[in-house]
Amino acid sequence: MKTERTGKMYEELVALCAQAGEVGSSIESIGWDQHVMMPRGAKSVEVRGRESSALSALHHGLITTPRIGELLQSIDVAKLSEAEAAQVREIKEMYKRAVGVPTELVAQITKLATEAEMVWRNARSSNDFALFQPYLEQLVALKCEEARCIDPRRRPYEVLLQEYEPGMTLGKLDKFFASIRSVCVPLIQEIANRPQPDVSMLNKEVPMELQVAYNKMLAALLGYDFENGRLDTSTHPMTCGFGRVTNRYTNGWLSALLGTAHEVGHGNYCHNLPLEHYGTPLGTYRSLGVHESQSLMMERHIAKSYPFWRGHFRYLQAMFSPALNGVTAEQFYHVVNLVEPGFIRVEADELTYTMHIILRYEIEKALMDGSLEVKDLPLVWNGKMKDLLGIVPPNDTLGCLQDIHWTDGSFGYFPTYTLGAIGAAQLFAGAEAQVPTLERDVAEGDLSSLNIWLKKNVHQHGCRYRSDELYRLATGSELTVGPYLAYLTEKFTNLYKL
Amino acid sequence: MKTERTGKMYEELVALCAQAGEVGSSIESIGWDQHVMMPRGAKSVEVRGRESSALSALHHGLITTPRIGELLQSIDVAKLSEAEAAQVREIKEMYKRAVGVPTELVAQITKLATEAEMVWRNARSSNDFALFQPYLEQLVALKCEEARCIDPRRRPYEVLLQEYEPGMTLGKLDKFFASIRSVCVPLIQEIANRPQPDVSMLNKEVPMELQVAYNKMLAALLGYDFENGRLDTSTHPMTCGFGRVTNRYTNGWLSALLGTAHEVGHGNYCHNLPLEHYGTPLGTYRSLGVHESQSLMMERHIAKSYPFWRGHFRYLQAMFSPALNGVTAEQFYHVVNLVEPGFIRVEADELTYTMHIILRYEIEKALMDGSLEVKDLPLVWNGKMKDLLGIVPPNDTLGCLQDIHWTDGSFGYFPTYTLGAIGAAQLFAGAEAQVPTLERDVAEGDLSSLNIWLKKNVHQHGCRYRSDELYRLATGSELTVGPYLAYLTEKFTNLYKL
Repeated sequence: MKTERTGKMYEELVALCAQAGEVGSSIESIGWDQHVMMPRGAKSVEVRGRESSALSALHHGLITTPRIGELLQSIDVAKLSEAEAAQVREIKEMYKRAVGVPTELVAQITKLATEAEMVWRNARSSNDFALFQPYLEQLVALKCEEARCIDPRRRPYEVLLQEYEPGMTLGKLDKFFASIRSVCVPLIQEIANRPQPDVSMLNKEVPMELQVAYNKMLAALLGYDFENGRLDTSTHPMTCGFGRVTNRYTNGWLSALLGTAHEVGHGNYCHNLPLEHYGTPLGTYRSLGVHESQSLMMERHIAKSYPFWRGHFRYLQAMFSPALNGVTAEQFYHVVNLVEPGFIRVEADELTYTMHIILRYEIEKALMDGSLEVKDLPLVWNGKMKDLLGIVPPNDTLGCLQDIHWTDGSFGYFPTYTLGAIGAAQLFAGAEAQVPTLERDVAEGDLSSLNIWLKKNVHQHGCRYRSDELYRLATGSELTVGPYLAYLTEKFTNLYKL
Repeated sequence: MKTERTGKMYEELVALCAQAGEVGSSIESIGWDQHVMMPRGAKSVEVRGRESSALSALHHGLITTPRIGELLQSIDVAKLSEAEAAQVREIKEMYKRAVGVPTELVAQITKLATEAEMVWRNARSSNDFALFQPYLEQLVALKCEEARCIDPRRRPYEVLLQEYEPGMTLGKLDKFFASIRSVCVPLIQEIANRPQPDVSMLNKEVPMELQVAYNKMLAALLGYDFENGRLDTSTHPMTCGFGRVTNRYTNGWLSALLGTAHEVGHGNYCHNLPLEHYGTPLGTYRSLGVHESQSLMMERHIAKSYPFWRGHFRYLQAMFSPALNGVTAEQFYHVVNLVEPGFIRVEADELTYTMHIILRYEIEKALMDGSLEVKDLPLVWNGKMKDLLGIVPPNDTLGCLQDIHWTDGSFGYFPTYTLGAIGAAQLFAGAEAQVPTLERDVAEGDLSSLNIWLKKNVHQHGCRYRSDELYRLATGSELTVGPYLAYLTEKFTNLYKL
């Protein structure tokens, strides 16, 4: 049984953690403002910079307060309930990561990241990798150092990965990616020989106000809670602040509606986390991979699915009339799922997208273990592009200089996209098996059965279970690539009549 | 000369203060979101409540950190520059107020305020003062106690006043209000016997999108910096976050445009504070009274002035066509300046507004010094209303229950409205004397000469000078009621042909 002393210490620990979490939440709210509302004048930007720095410093101080360390050492976890023990386990990991890295190293990386981003922008626009090379070299070195501070016994890249997907190992990722590669590369090659659908409908103009209205309807259909959320416009679609979502309408109306579906998946996860644990691990999303599984569920398994468009296309068509006159649901479904290898990851389709991730994963791993030198990156990048997608970028701007993510040292982040795709497929298969009406519900535009299932099996647990445990409880198996590969194979074999 | 040691201590003190100020600024930014953007669902409200509480607690911790006290004791002010000494003087006052009040008393007042506001809403809607009476009694008692904690040697009401207008005394306020009363009460009585202008134009409808566009133009004309600011819609017009302004369009188009002018005055002050001192007194507005002088300058001395409408009315008329067809600039100017005693302060005109403030000032003072018991407030309120405005509210809902401000114990806040009016008149007279082209510039819709003068003489100084010193440096005299009374007398004598 829990003693009074353990109970008090546990409560103190959780209260300290919650306070830090609430400051983190404030940083999110201010971040939303920055992306959506903030004027761009120099004064306004400077004031915001000072606000953000002050809150970030306080947040760091709160999560590294020595009292947390004392409490973590003193609490007898055996005397806690399972949920409480999970809370302590997660706080311990967070604390260890936060106190492990010397403040000067954090400051060094932050400073370098700011410079590196500017240099990267120049390098990209002038197609000059050599400009960026020394910065990337330093970033790799400093991030390896950071990893060694956190856990010197593990491979640096695996340590960095924990930041985004706790519990994931390079061994598992290697297996996942090898399987995906072996299935998807041949699929992509076969599709290259098949006829493509007529995509001229994508160039039909739809007035902005109709798009905004349609996307609002779509979000609400997908279960987005407008009582507690908002759908606004920003440069890039995102979810930020308490479940608030944004979208952009500049990449065309199809991209906009897929963006809405994607962000709604993220937003629903935020809104369904248990509020009584807000700011602590039990009230926080499990990992970036699990978060992405929720957005990709809505984007791919709903907004790119045949059942959804079979029932819903007539509404899109009516609202966007006359742009989609004469198009059938089947034609539209194929256009939504067009497969076409390209150089740019963020513009890639469902099937080729993962090839971009595999490429970055292999490169990140090799940079971190020293088997690839930064100077050889362009050559290696282009070689892998040829192997995976059969195309070679004409320059580094369209190749290894395209992503912003390495400029701030986010090594280990890219794999979460694919972990999300794998998770989405597994969870959707689980939901289909457990909710017999699911396909019909989706076709009728009724997402409540899916959303109830997701809340019960994923959202409400926060960080109570490790990722694999979460997947096992929801679907009977830890994360596995089978459902994802089955889904891709069936979908694209049918679509392209392979 | 400043020694190295003094210099280091000074820098540490200012850095501590700036960090607190940056958290305060973050609270403002989140507050703006709450007023303008936040969804109203229970979850969203709860998350925001937690964010705000966490930041407020941190802010209080930062401004009361004992290190500030040590530094304030150790720094030899004689060795600092004048600006640095002002910085220390202001930090010392802030610190003394913050550490003087026991945390439990602050908590007690906060808790009572929350309950009192709910009770007040009920009391107001059911016209039942007796409901609110015990809460107001407790609030008065606790605020007197708070004042005693801060400075037991001064009259409690004067201590509370310092929160909003540092340096102001009850002796000065008594003199100001006596002079105003002696001039304005007869003016109001004389006007009651004069014919009123035709106000039917105010009921002409103007489409919302035209209003929004017009108000944006007006704000820009008045010098509002849209590079660093925004004009949004909220329930009440306000300035919040870094100089962001809001307005409402539900009280009619005239009220909206005056609201824009008012908030732009506040916003310009924020935007022109010296950014290098952001978060510290040298980068902070002088007082609420001085802040209000800036908003009332734009509202009354520009947007209610004849020179402005003489030049500008044609643009308003063209934009709102046909609503204002057939109206002359002179007629419009009179409508803008209509004097009509009414029960509700927030709807009052320029001349009668001050009577509402005098009434509240006299009541607050009497409550705090014990010469008025809360139970007698309705009777006293109605008697003063009769003396000052010649009208008696038919019930307490339209009388002593109309304002929200006492529910959170903001005693001492109301006088800042009138201090702002007095300050605006004095500063505008000063600007007129020093900028010979001012009247012509205003008539041409060019506010730059006024805004440059305000920035130079008011905004850029932050809290460097005490209020009286600020007025003296800008106009040659400390704050005095003469220019205000001269302005009111001349304006309304001409308008109503008295």
